[in-house]
Amino acid sequence: MQALFCKNGKLSIEGCPMPVRQKGEALIRVHRAGICTTDIEIVKGYVPGFSGIPGHEFYGYVEEAEDAALLGKRATAEINCACGKCGYCRSGLPRHCPHRTVLGITEKNGSFAEYITVPQENVVVIPDEIPETSALLIEPLAAALEILEQVPVKPGQSVLLVGDGRLGQLIGCVFLANGLPLSAVGKHAAKLGRLKQRGARTYRLNKFAASPFDIVIEASGSPSGFDLALACVKPRGTVVLKSTYAGGFQFNPSPVVVNELSVIGSRCGRFSEAVKFLKKFKPDLSYMISARYPFSQALRAFEEVKENNVLKVVLEME
Amino acid sequence: MQALFCKNGKLSIEGCPMPVRQKGEALIRVHRAGICTTDIEIVKGYVPGFSGIPGHEFYGYVEEAEDAALLGKRATAEINCACGKCGYCRSGLPRHCPHRTVLGITEKNGSFAEYITVPQENVVVIPDEIPETSALLIEPLAAALEILEQVPVKPGQSVLLVGDGRLGQLIGCVFLANGLPLSAVGKHAAKLGRLKQRGARTYRLNKFAASPFDIVIEASGSPSGFDLALACVKPRGTVVLKSTYAGGFQFNPSPVVVNELSVIGSRCGRFSEAVKFLKKFKPDLSYMISARYPFSQALRAFEEVKENNVLKVVLEME
Repeated sequence: MQALFCKNGKLSIEGCPMPVRQKGEALIRVHRAGICTTDIEIVKGYVPGFSGIPGHEFYGYVEEAEDAALLGKRATAEINCACGKCGYCRSGLPRHCPHRTVLGITEKNGSFAEYITVPQENVVVIPDEIPETSALLIEPLAAALEILEQVPVKPGQSVLLVGDGRLGQLIGCVFLANGLPLSAVGKHAAKLGRLKQRGARTYRLNKFAASPFDIVIEASGSPSGFDLALACVKPRGTVVLKSTYAGGFQFNPSPVVVNELSVIGSRCGRFSEAVKFLKKFKPDLSYMISARYPFSQALRAFEEVKENNVLKVVLEME
Repeated sequence: MQALFCKNGKLSIEGCPMPVRQKGEALIRVHRAGICTTDIEIVKGYVPGFSGIPGHEFYGYVEEAEDAALLGKRATAEINCACGKCGYCRSGLPRHCPHRTVLGITEKNGSFAEYITVPQENVVVIPDEIPETSALLIEPLAAALEILEQVPVKPGQSVLLVGDGRLGQLIGCVFLANGLPLSAVGKHAAKLGRLKQRGARTYRLNKFAASPFDIVIEASGSPSGFDLALACVKPRGTVVLKSTYAGGFQFNPSPVVVNELSVIGSRCGRFSEAVKFLKKFKPDLSYMISARYPFSQALRAFEEVKENNVLKVVLEME
């Protein structure tokens, strides 16, 4: 099969053997795969020494599985492949299993390929009523929903979203669909316009006078977004960090200590919650797909993700 | 009167007029004052442009007050001077009042002087049964107790204290007196020995193999302590930041995001809780006073605080 490899920070499409399904695994023929900021960070070196096939936002069709009910189904897969035995797995948090591999991120090949194998228990069947564009966004949507699991918003609390990009759009969708108040600050008029349409109060960054919020969600992926989040949160307030960064940045923890802030890291969420959300609210996420490329043009697609006005770029494997 | 001034990062003892008590204030004759790491940081520039009298750990005797019941009493004072009217003040959090001044830290002269004025409602009378050495530690003890208000320890959770210095000793005292399990890692055999005597499981830093804890308290005041804390906390665990630092340091937030950590800043606590704690548990804190200097030798005392094996250095004003 053809697959996109990342080696020493370089991407290339190469021919390689099909993955062989192991006991307990399913083989999925990848149909569509989205490019995530994490993929860009991986190429930049976020996972030191990463060498293999990246990609973790996808759906496809199950070709082989021990569970016959899965065969032929349209499906995606939870990205954390857990041991199933440790304390985290037993307490319903397999995505924190210390022994886990992670699709396209840690010691497990990802979805920028014609085929992928995943543990069968990770397979999430996508109901027919969920359109293709939403199906492609189950992974980042679960990550957006994770915030509400970690930081329940109390009545009367104010929430600021920093960042109007891919993840920001989904966080906005999740908060606003659930009737939670949301202000958003970003750089891009068109992207902010999408959040405004859903009911957010929006601000252009260059015209934003920081005022204090109870909860600030940093989803800009930029160190300056982190600084802005710290500047906009009330004493005893909460900053939710959604972005991973390649490398670090200069940090002065004094505001965290003096204002007794809570800085909460937030990563993956439960795919089942994202599927439930899509079935319940049926949000129109079709505008999130900015461009589609045949898999053979994956390198060009990766370049396009870096453009300012782009949301999600999709690779079409077939 | 004589007072210790900090101007442009330089300390000097100077003569100056006595402070004049304003309406609603009490005038306290300072008897003893402790030097805190925050004082050292202020001299280094932690509060940009600070110019005045530092000092916020002290006790003395009330010489003037509108409330006659306070006159002549041995007392200390809450360091945050709040407006009494804003949302934080009304909800019992005057120490987060955005309009506050802070004794010896923000726009209010502190206790390295013969006299200090403070808002009368900040005065905390020290019961006679509390020995001098404990009386001097009410402010940092309240800061240690603050952790338990912010981060209740659940049964079965493991706690690691990073740092065996002044604040670390008091945090150890508070946790262990309350029957909470505590491991501690530090650099100094003698200081670790004190924590061990109270029941902590102690580790020398150079022999410590990081193992994961549910809660890690960073009280070392050093960026490497912060890195160690992040390395020693379980996924979904909590890091409590007690230290303020002059300037910042390089920070990679990936572990916070990937492991969904909560980083909780923690600063001042309620003095009334510290007084209650001292009355209930009567801990022996006399070993915490490493050296005493007459006020005239304050500059030498400040030098001594920086020595490795020193805990609290006290200035005797009279």
